[in-house]
Amino acid sequence: MKNSGLLIVLSGFAGSGKGTIMKKLTAAYPDRYALSVSATTRSIRPGEEEGRDYFFKTKEEFETMIRRKELLEYATYVGNYYGTPKKYVEEQLSTGKHVLLEIEIQGAIQIKAKFPDTLLLFVTPPSAKTLLNRMHGRGTESEDEIRARMKRAIEEAQGSDVYDYLIINDDLDQCVEQTNRIIENERCRMKYCLEDIYIIEEDLKRYLKGEEI
Amino acid sequence: MKNSGLLIVLSGFAGSGKGTIMKKLTAAYPDRYALSVSATTRSIRPGEEEGRDYFFKTKEEFETMIRRKELLEYATYVGNYYGTPKKYVEEQLSTGKHVLLEIEIQGAIQIKAKFPDTLLLFVTPPSAKTLLNRMHGRGTESEDEIRARMKRAIEEAQGSDVYDYLIINDDLDQCVEQTNRIIENERCRMKYCLEDIYIIEEDLKRYLKGEEI
Repeated sequence: MKNSGLLIVLSGFAGSGKGTIMKKLTAAYPDRYALSVSATTRSIRPGEEEGRDYFFKTKEEFETMIRRKELLEYATYVGNYYGTPKKYVEEQLSTGKHVLLEIEIQGAIQIKAKFPDTLLLFVTPPSAKTLLNRMHGRGTESEDEIRARMKRAIEEAQGSDVYDYLIINDDLDQCVEQTNRIIENERCRMKYCLEDIYIIEEDLKRYLKGEEI
Repeated sequence: MKNSGLLIVLSGFAGSGKGTIMKKLTAAYPDRYALSVSATTRSIRPGEEEGRDYFFKTKEEFETMIRRKELLEYATYVGNYYGTPKKYVEEQLSTGKHVLLEIEIQGAIQIKAKFPDTLLLFVTPPSAKTLLNRMHGRGTESEDEIRARMKRAIEEAQGSDVYDYLIINDDLDQCVEQTNRIIENERCRMKYCLEDIYIIEEDLKRYLKGEEI
């Protein structure tokens, strides 16, 4: 158990920088983290790449993946499907890497129910004002799309109490380190260390019997 | 809630170095941590000081404190009473400091039941061999006392799964930093951050109504 990686969900408001945090984390610690690549039916944005940012699917293709149970979780968000292909995640975890999933709240709840050890992290800018400035600054969405995302953000805020930790993305580099520390500390949770204690216990029993340890 | 300190329990095998970790932590971050001073009926050891290491009490005095409910928890350990005077802990928490309690498992369970947000940390040397070497090296206990402590350590090992984190004390300075990180991260738990999210949510609602934020 200790040698298997952890499943880490990063959710957060659009414009929270969660995608950037994940990329920086995998770039800084490539041996420790793997990025899960989601499948989606939304349109490709300028600068995005098939298989790196997403697997872009038609609605029909996505629904076939659902039927074949090839997804760890899936959800709809602003009219599109988003989901996590299962196979890649399982392969990475078995090599000991932590797998980072960028999914929203519906998916996070599905994953936590199936895998209770999943660490759920919620990323937010320090304020609503920063969030809106980033959205407008990105310039990839219309005002109507931004308003739709803000409505969605309000719903997400209301469900955010299911998450384990809140990560406030004020300074990006500090935020990446904070995220790394939270994940690394998870390794020290007693549930992952019971074997370490058991070995000491057995050795002490041998000592009390007069055996060499 | 966010401005109140956290109650932190450090338990661990005799010889684990938990006392040293606590002292180093408060010395390194005096504004952040306060050390709780326990009351005990055990004899004072060379180098120990009344009111700094313990409040040394007779059995009768200790039992009076129990009756007057002046203790946050108490327990017996190798034939002596140990307990945490309530007043000092509450004063320190209200100033925003984290209060470190060095207590054993019976007391830890009592505290966690009364205050579920208490963080329970269990400290261990990296191996049983290190543990025994430290006990013998300390030279303050007879072989019979060491064997009594080892028997107790086995019991503690068997109950250690109630703790939140395991801290392996191999390199002392690293261990102190690790302990500090675990405690600081606890602050990012969603349960302590719900107000941050609520403020953003309310601001977004105002934005959608066309108000200035």
